[in-house]
Amino acid sequence: MAEHLSQSELDYPFKLLEYLNGFRISKAIFSACELGLFDLLLQSQKPLNAAEVAQTLGTSEDGIERLLDVLVAIEIVDVEVVHGTAHYSSTDVANLYLAKTSPKSLHDLIIYYSQTIYPLWNNLVDAVRDGKNQNEKTFGLPSEEIFSAIYRSEEEMLKFMGLMNSTWVIDGHDIVTAFDLSRFKSVIDLGGCSGALARELAKEYPSSTVTVLDLPAVVQTAQQHFAQQDDTIGFQEGDFFEGEIPPADLYILARIIHDWKEEKNLKLLRKIHTACHPGGGVLIAEALLFENRRGPTTVQMFSLNMLVQTEGKEHPPSHYTRLLTDAGFRDVQVCRTGKSYDAILAFK
Amino acid sequence: MAEHLSQSELDYPFKLLEYLNGFRISKAIFSACELGLFDLLLQSQKPLNAAEVAQTLGTSEDGIERLLDVLVAIEIVDVEVVHGTAHYSSTDVANLYLAKTSPKSLHDLIIYYSQTIYPLWNNLVDAVRDGKNQNEKTFGLPSEEIFSAIYRSEEEMLKFMGLMNSTWVIDGHDIVTAFDLSRFKSVIDLGGCSGALARELAKEYPSSTVTVLDLPAVVQTAQQHFAQQDDTIGFQEGDFFEGEIPPADLYILARIIHDWKEEKNLKLLRKIHTACHPGGGVLIAEALLFENRRGPTTVQMFSLNMLVQTEGKEHPPSHYTRLLTDAGFRDVQVCRTGKSYDAILAFK
Repeated sequence: MAEHLSQSELDYPFKLLEYLNGFRISKAIFSACELGLFDLLLQSQKPLNAAEVAQTLGTSEDGIERLLDVLVAIEIVDVEVVHGTAHYSSTDVANLYLAKTSPKSLHDLIIYYSQTIYPLWNNLVDAVRDGKNQNEKTFGLPSEEIFSAIYRSEEEMLKFMGLMNSTWVIDGHDIVTAFDLSRFKSVIDLGGCSGALARELAKEYPSSTVTVLDLPAVVQTAQQHFAQQDDTIGFQEGDFFEGEIPPADLYILARIIHDWKEEKNLKLLRKIHTACHPGGGVLIAEALLFENRRGPTTVQMFSLNMLVQTEGKEHPPSHYTRLLTDAGFRDVQVCRTGKSYDAILAFK
Repeated sequence: MAEHLSQSELDYPFKLLEYLNGFRISKAIFSACELGLFDLLLQSQKPLNAAEVAQTLGTSEDGIERLLDVLVAIEIVDVEVVHGTAHYSSTDVANLYLAKTSPKSLHDLIIYYSQTIYPLWNNLVDAVRDGKNQNEKTFGLPSEEIFSAIYRSEEEMLKFMGLMNSTWVIDGHDIVTAFDLSRFKSVIDLGGCSGALARELAKEYPSSTVTVLDLPAVVQTAQQHFAQQDDTIGFQEGDFFEGEIPPADLYILARIIHDWKEEKNLKLLRKIHTACHPGGGVLIAEALLFENRRGPTTVQMFSLNMLVQTEGKEHPPSHYTRLLTDAGFRDVQVCRTGKSYDAILAFK
């Protein structure tokens, strides 16, 4: 993505054409996930030919063969040709990140990208023109209440929670180890969704009590679909915008601030400051823009995504520092993880 | 696209995440084209700030700024920050390939990708499952008559012709110079659409007579929208599947064969062989798969695209050689151009 568009692009625009075809690569991977291809390849004891894959997945042989060949080209599937017949097998990357059963699976993130974000971005022109999200045009849902759109049905809620869960399964460890959080004995993850980030925190700091506070329906779905046998985290039903925020040493706000307008965020942070134990703090997890807004590319793309889907945007560290300071917090510390999400810690 | 997925992907899947975000990059460029951003930046005498761009294009300032920042990140737009305000200007690549007025513009290709192919690929799962195109599910059009779908309205016909035109404007020269075609004095481009490839041929071989034969509505649209002042090419209305094929020295079939099933193609090639002057030939322009079907990536992706949109697919050279030989042609020669499209020449 960050490769330099060289002068030779003027002779023939190879890189530009690659960008224009990016949606095809995305959808090829998305569709393979939706069809269960990576799970089949992981579970199979031997490489499979296209006919075998087609029969097991209930697809056309011709269609799955073309899809498999694209996945081979981008090195997500392996192939061996025996007596003229291609036999396909999985790669380590696919087994780890694309098979549904892997503990690091991005499967749920991909389903959400494919079924929700891809169609939303089909209305990017309107989003830029109108300066607002496209939930109404894309899905016929009111654009003002973004979580009414995101949580419009049990199925949609589960999909969104899967997206959040996937992210923290690969990025959560970096967030909870960005700072030494061992001093905070009671931790509340506000809007903690499936509990994936809270689980990472509880694992890293076993002497802390970690609670996820989220809307009743979210908590119920989390307990029903994302609970783990050795869970040490707790769940509490509530609404941190409308209802009370219980006292704690540390509050986590992971990908909350970027959904909303400044006024709403400031009000929330002031409310957290009031509830927070003396000496406590708040940990914000967001993707951080550079101070001059010239990158990182993925964060700029996330910010454009926020336009299409929410009422918020991504920010540079200075924005969060100012917000936190205005809300009464001090000693703001920023840690860029080098991965997709970064961490900001501030003290009461 | 062809970068190796290294072992370090197992630590953190940077490249995989880039693939998953590919659709966002595509749509960002598509949307900028649809909004006329690159034309504005080309025509402007000075760099513009987001407010100026927003006012001229009639967009929100916040939305266009986020879009501009993404385009800066992928080096398609330049930026200079003066007294804290970002001023945006075009790049050589954008001026040459993205501005609508450039003779090498991909603008029309991009509009077609954005408004037709992107939505079609939203149904890739169904295409793979059913093994057929998704015109019906995506646009409510019959899947059996692919050109009834593609040419469903004057507007759609114009868009598709723009797509074809864009391609030959950047790839046409390589096709007509892949072989020395100077011996062929009369050339008919069957399904030659806007005439872009025929123009490249007429320019390279000024002593040849070059005629585009296409459906009456296509010819009329070509003459109305794509004619050029110094045009030396002719147009003839006809249907090369259902009607007669006039005699000539050379027939061009550019991106025709890949739309259809083998039987239909073989019948067409036999009909061409019958009409062809002795010593004449046929020039096929298609994107060629490797013989073992393991690449090139873009051609595999085109083949998957054919599944979603047509009843055909992409092939390796041996397939075309066999087809041409079965139809009575001989001395089949293959030239890979190293660009998006390749050339095959055969003689009667």
